[in-house]
Amino acid sequence: MSIEKLYPDGKEASDYELVSPKSVRELIRKKEITGPTSGMSAGYAQANLVILPKKYAFDFLLFSMRNPKSCPILEVTEPGCRMLDITAREADIATDIPKYRIYKDGQLTEEVTDVEKYWRDDLVSFLIGCSFSFEADLLQADVPVRQIEENCNVPMYLTNIPCKSAGIFHGNMVVSMRPIPYELVPKAVMITGQMPKVHGAPIHIGNPEHIGIKDISHPDFGDMVTIRENEVPVFWPCGVTPQAAVMASKPDFCITHAPGHMFITDIKNINLKY
Amino acid sequence: MSIEKLYPDGKEASDYELVSPKSVRELIRKKEITGPTSGMSAGYAQANLVILPKKYAFDFLLFSMRNPKSCPILEVTEPGCRMLDITAREADIATDIPKYRIYKDGQLTEEVTDVEKYWRDDLVSFLIGCSFSFEADLLQADVPVRQIEENCNVPMYLTNIPCKSAGIFHGNMVVSMRPIPYELVPKAVMITGQMPKVHGAPIHIGNPEHIGIKDISHPDFGDMVTIRENEVPVFWPCGVTPQAAVMASKPDFCITHAPGHMFITDIKNINLKY
Repeated sequence: MSIEKLYPDGKEASDYELVSPKSVRELIRKKEITGPTSGMSAGYAQANLVILPKKYAFDFLLFSMRNPKSCPILEVTEPGCRMLDITAREADIATDIPKYRIYKDGQLTEEVTDVEKYWRDDLVSFLIGCSFSFEADLLQADVPVRQIEENCNVPMYLTNIPCKSAGIFHGNMVVSMRPIPYELVPKAVMITGQMPKVHGAPIHIGNPEHIGIKDISHPDFGDMVTIRENEVPVFWPCGVTPQAAVMASKPDFCITHAPGHMFITDIKNINLKY
Repeated sequence: MSIEKLYPDGKEASDYELVSPKSVRELIRKKEITGPTSGMSAGYAQANLVILPKKYAFDFLLFSMRNPKSCPILEVTEPGCRMLDITAREADIATDIPKYRIYKDGQLTEEVTDVEKYWRDDLVSFLIGCSFSFEADLLQADVPVRQIEENCNVPMYLTNIPCKSAGIFHGNMVVSMRPIPYELVPKAVMITGQMPKVHGAPIHIGNPEHIGIKDISHPDFGDMVTIRENEVPVFWPCGVTPQAAVMASKPDFCITHAPGHMFITDIKNINLKY
């Protein structure tokens, strides 16, 4: 009897795929990991990060609550507290992400590998669900995820879909796009619809112009991927939406993760369903 | 051919069961309806209400976010605004509930039929999902809802399950109890689990003592109902939890609905599932 390989193409488990979230976070804290986190700690949820001064916290939390599809909140910290409670134990939000972005008055001013020197007693951290979680389920159910196949970033687009504003925060929804074979679209909707804490079901299927995307071959963020003959572009609400709202709304200070450089939580993807 | 009655016991459609939410709200505003709202505008969601000064709004919103099973937020208004946006059109939150409660420093001081004279520019209203929505689905699926059969209030209990605190707000979870025949428990879990915006799946099945309920025959709120031989008590997170947190946390001012006297929204129950 021959043993069938889980990865028939000869693919090996990628770096840190089988390493625990706690250990990966320690390596990030020691700057031994500084790159994108895609594929690390398989089975565990990764999160987007927005850090804002307390004076903006109610407005931002309300913005997230009013736009739960694009901004599904996983955890909000106490003001000034670098430790997390719900999404990870023994984690330091100021050091455990490989790359951060600093925004002043809505302008990106710097990318850094930790934010210890920027830390203040009034900073509140918002951890926001990320579509990496549902992609694992799509792949397991044999629904292709093109940007993983093509080893690039997911294509993302600004749309004409307005977010519900709250206080200073406003902006349009950003979406990510995955080309799905026609016959697999219902399955892709069912699978992702089960995970509302990581953006849930698609927001649009089929006609990019209908949601204000003029040229699908030129995404506003990320990389273009191949759309095949038998496939339809499917659009999901994207965790870049809150970053776009920060850029549009210009709070005097804000820290976010750098795209693709996520926070790796202790929460198993499967536990985001229930 | 005889026509089978939908209500074999000869029950008629109850008062206002087939009247639209907008019309029922108008009758409430005119004080032509002043009693409990159970059964009115069948198919539409009803909501719990908490109104707090803006200075408490971030803490309360965070408390709700950290305890989404007992405090599923449907809408948060702008400070001072009596109009709603998401849950109802042409509604006035200061007049469209049949009975309100006024709390000062955590003490109930008055019950009133409108709160116009209490209105202030800094008041923020929180509309919170209510289990009436999933009870409609249970009944349709032939799962009994005892307090409806016995025409009384659902029994509710203080538990030993701590809520996650946020700012000044803290307290234990309040649960509602429905006796369910053993063979229907999985169905009841599946049905209610589909509706996380109205408390979702049960928090406990079977052993009241395990969650700190010493005497199931004496509920802390509401009325006791019959538990039959082949039935098990099933406990769901309850919308009274935020009111208990208000009482425990003593903000200087707070308005809530009176138990059973809910806000009738324009949102169909079925739309709370997706």
